[in-house]
Amino acid sequence: MKVVFIGHGSSGWTAATTLRAWDRAAEITVIDKKDYDAYHPCAMPYAIGGLWEDESPLIESMNYQMMKINFLRRHEALKIDRQNKKVTAKNLENEEIIDVEYDYLVICTGSKAKTPPLPGIDGKNVYALKWIEDSARIRKAATNASKVAVVGASAIGLEVATELAHRGIETVVLARSRIMRLLIDPDYANDTVKLLEEKLPKLKIIVGIGINEIVLDSNGMAIKVTTDQGDFECDFVVNATGVQPEVTLAKEAGLEIGESWAIVTDDELKTSDPNILAVGDCAETTHLVSKKPINSAIATCCVRMARVAAMTIARPGTLKFPGTMNNFIVPYIDLRVGSVGLIKKAAEDAGFEVVSAKIKTHNKPPYMPDAKELYFKILVDKNTGKLLGAQAIGPDSITDNLNVVSMGLQSEMTFQQLLEADLCYAPAVNETIYPVTQALEMISRKMLRRQK
Amino acid sequence: MKVVFIGHGSSGWTAATTLRAWDRAAEITVIDKKDYDAYHPCAMPYAIGGLWEDESPLIESMNYQMMKINFLRRHEALKIDRQNKKVTAKNLENEEIIDVEYDYLVICTGSKAKTPPLPGIDGKNVYALKWIEDSARIRKAATNASKVAVVGASAIGLEVATELAHRGIETVVLARSRIMRLLIDPDYANDTVKLLEEKLPKLKIIVGIGINEIVLDSNGMAIKVTTDQGDFECDFVVNATGVQPEVTLAKEAGLEIGESWAIVTDDELKTSDPNILAVGDCAETTHLVSKKPINSAIATCCVRMARVAAMTIARPGTLKFPGTMNNFIVPYIDLRVGSVGLIKKAAEDAGFEVVSAKIKTHNKPPYMPDAKELYFKILVDKNTGKLLGAQAIGPDSITDNLNVVSMGLQSEMTFQQLLEADLCYAPAVNETIYPVTQALEMISRKMLRRQK
Repeated sequence: MKVVFIGHGSSGWTAATTLRAWDRAAEITVIDKKDYDAYHPCAMPYAIGGLWEDESPLIESMNYQMMKINFLRRHEALKIDRQNKKVTAKNLENEEIIDVEYDYLVICTGSKAKTPPLPGIDGKNVYALKWIEDSARIRKAATNASKVAVVGASAIGLEVATELAHRGIETVVLARSRIMRLLIDPDYANDTVKLLEEKLPKLKIIVGIGINEIVLDSNGMAIKVTTDQGDFECDFVVNATGVQPEVTLAKEAGLEIGESWAIVTDDELKTSDPNILAVGDCAETTHLVSKKPINSAIATCCVRMARVAAMTIARPGTLKFPGTMNNFIVPYIDLRVGSVGLIKKAAEDAGFEVVSAKIKTHNKPPYMPDAKELYFKILVDKNTGKLLGAQAIGPDSITDNLNVVSMGLQSEMTFQQLLEADLCYAPAVNETIYPVTQALEMISRKMLRRQK
Repeated sequence: MKVVFIGHGSSGWTAATTLRAWDRAAEITVIDKKDYDAYHPCAMPYAIGGLWEDESPLIESMNYQMMKINFLRRHEALKIDRQNKKVTAKNLENEEIIDVEYDYLVICTGSKAKTPPLPGIDGKNVYALKWIEDSARIRKAATNASKVAVVGASAIGLEVATELAHRGIETVVLARSRIMRLLIDPDYANDTVKLLEEKLPKLKIIVGIGINEIVLDSNGMAIKVTTDQGDFECDFVVNATGVQPEVTLAKEAGLEIGESWAIVTDDELKTSDPNILAVGDCAETTHLVSKKPINSAIATCCVRMARVAAMTIARPGTLKFPGTMNNFIVPYIDLRVGSVGLIKKAAEDAGFEVVSAKIKTHNKPPYMPDAKELYFKILVDKNTGKLLGAQAIGPDSITDNLNVVSMGLQSEMTFQQLLEADLCYAPAVNETIYPVTQALEMISRKMLRRQK
C-alpha cells in the first residue's frame, strides 16, 4: 500500500508516524517544502520571549530513515491527479518534476496567515507568526526594537505581544473589533485586556480602532501605523489577524470545500474522494456542540485528526473522529485564558437559549498562602439543561476545570450531571468546591428556582 | 418543615447551608459535640508541617445566626426515635437532656480513627489525625520531637509523615502490608515510597513489617515501637491505620447497615427510613465502576452527597447521587499521588479482565525548562474496551489527567472515545500528547494489535 502525505506540520508528522507504528509494510512518502524536520509551533512565542537562545529546542529530529519513511524535503506538491492516483511534485533545489503514486493520499497542507487589505502590510518588517522562520525573524527583530505595533488580536498574536512587552518593548496591540473574537465572550475579552495591561506595563491594547495604513519608508520598512486614534511609531509590525486554511491543491483537484472554506471530511477523515483524506488546519469537521461545520486551526485537533486518519488507513473502522469543540488555552506569561465548547454568540447563532453563570474564585482554598484568583464562566442550554461551553482566566488549573467541562460536553451532560461529577481534590491542588462546580451551583439556582 | 442534622463536619455543614440556600422557611437544627464552627480537615497536615502558626486559618466562621440555623454546639445526640421523629440530645456543658423533632433527619456522623489491637496504642502521645484538636496536638508535639514513628500507611497518615520529615524530624513509617493499600496498585506504591525517600532524607518507609508493641514508659508515654525488624525509638507515635464509619446511633435506631459497615443510602441519600438521610463518611453508596457498595471517606464524596441530600429535601428529584469512584489526590510536599476508578485488584475482584498501560512522561513538553516527570497508568476492561481506572504520580497536573479519566468513567467511555477526547493544550500547561492520551495510545496498541 502506497500512502502519500502532503505537508509535514503537526498533522502530517503525526499522521505519518502513527501510520508507520501500525503498518510496517506501507510505502510512506511525505512531501514538504521545508528543509528541516518537524517542530513545535505552539512554543514559538516563548522563543520570541527569549526562553531559549533560538528555535532549535523546538525542532524534532524524526529519524525517518529508520522508520522507512521517504521524506521528500524541499519538494512542492503541484497537482493531485485523482484519476491516476498520483501527486506531481517539484524539487525546489533542482526544479526536477516527479510523480508520486498513492493508494491513499493525506492532505496536511495546514493554514496560512491572513493578509488583511491594508496598505503597507507587505512591508519587509511586517511579520506574521506562522513558520519557524517567522519566529526567528521576530525574535531577531525584537533584540534591537524599542517599539512594536501588533495589528489584529488573535490569541497567538496577543501571545507574541505579551512576550514582546515582557521583554521590555513598548508594545501596542491595535484591534479593529476586540481580542480573540471567536474564542471568548466580550466580558472575558475585556477582563483579559485589563489583567494583561496590569501585569505588563509595556503593553497597551486598543480595541475598536480603525487602522488606516502601515507607513513604509523608502526601503519598504514599516515605521508607523496610522489609525483613527492617532499614529503609532514602531520598529516592526506583527500581523496578528489570524490564519486561513491552505486548500489550493485540494480545490484544484475538485475536492469538496465546505462553508468554513476548508476541505470537507467525514468521521474517518475521508474527503469527497474516498482515497484522499484531509487532516489539520486545512480540514473541515463538525463542531461537537453546535453540530455545525468548523475549521479548527488548533494543535490538539490536528493531532486527533491525524491519529484517526492513520487508523482509517491502517485499521479501518477502529477509531472515529467525533468532531471538535475548538478547545483552547493560551498562556500570557503566567496568566492563562481558555475556552471549551461554544461561546455565547456561537451558542445563540446555533439556536440555543443561553443561561450563564460567572464567578471569581481561586485556584485553591483562600486559606492557602499561594492561592490565586481565577475567573470561571459556564453556559448551559435553558431548555434542556445541557452544557454548552465554559471559559476561564487564571493560573494553570483552569485547564483542569475546562477539561472537566469539555468531557461533560462530549458526553452531552446536563448541568446536574456535571454538578455531581466525582473529581480529585486536595487543598494543595484545587478549591474545595471546584470553580466549575461553584459556577454550576449558580446555574442550578438560576435553572431550578424558576421552576418552583 | 423541621430538619435536623447530626454532625457538623464537611457533610453536615455543606448539607445544612445548602438546604438553607434553597429553603428559607425550613427550621434547621444542627447538633454537634464540638465547640467551634466548621473547619477544613484536608489541610490539617500542612498545619502540622508548619505552614501556619496554628490551625486557626482552617476554621470557617459560619454565621449561623444570620442564616437562621439553630446550631446546638457541645451537644451529643444520644438517640434517634424514629417512631416519634425526634432526636434526644445532651448538652455537654450542663448535662441537660433535650428532644428535637424532625420531619427529615440527616445523619452526618462521619468516621472515627481505627484503633488496631496493638499493645500501647492507648499511649498518651499516640495520636491519630482525625479532629482539629489532633492536628494541634501533633503540631505541638512536633515542635520538640526529633524522632517519630508512624504506625500504618494510610494516604493521610503518610501525608503527616512527609510533613514531619520535611520539618526535619526523623520519621519512620511502619506498615504491615503496603502503603495506600486500597488506593493504588503495588507498583505505584513502591514507586511512591522510592520517590518520597529520595525527596525526604529524614523519611524511612518500611513495609511488610510485623509490629509487636508500642512500648510505654511509667507515665503512659510511648517511647519506642518494637517490631520483627528491630526497635524504633520515638518521641511520639502517629496512628495512621485509617478510619471507619461512625454508625452507632444509626445502628441503634435500626437503620440498615451495609456490607461496607456504613449506612445504606439510595440515589437520593435516603436510608432505609425515608425520613432519614445519611451523608459523608458514615454513609454507604455505590461504586460507579464496580457497581458494588462502597463507603468513601473522601471529602469530595461528602460534599457531593451533602448537596444531593439537601436537594432531596428542598427540591425532591432534581438532583440524584450517581455514586462515587473514591477519586483522590494526596500531596506529599511537592509530589502528588492520585487515583480514579478501580485499582487492579478491585477491578479483578469485580470480575473485569484488566489490560493496563503504564508510562513515564512529563507534565509539559521536555523542551520546556520547567518540565517535570510524571507517572501515569490506565486500566481498561479487555472485553468491552471500557475504562476502569487510572493512577498517577507527579506534579499538580496529574489532577487534570485523572479528572479527564474520571469524567470518561462517569460516562462509561471506551478507550477509543477517551483517546479522541478534545482537551485544552498549550506547552506551558501540558504535554503535547496528554499523559492520559499517551497511555491510551499504548492501550490501543495492546487491544487492537491482537485483533489483526
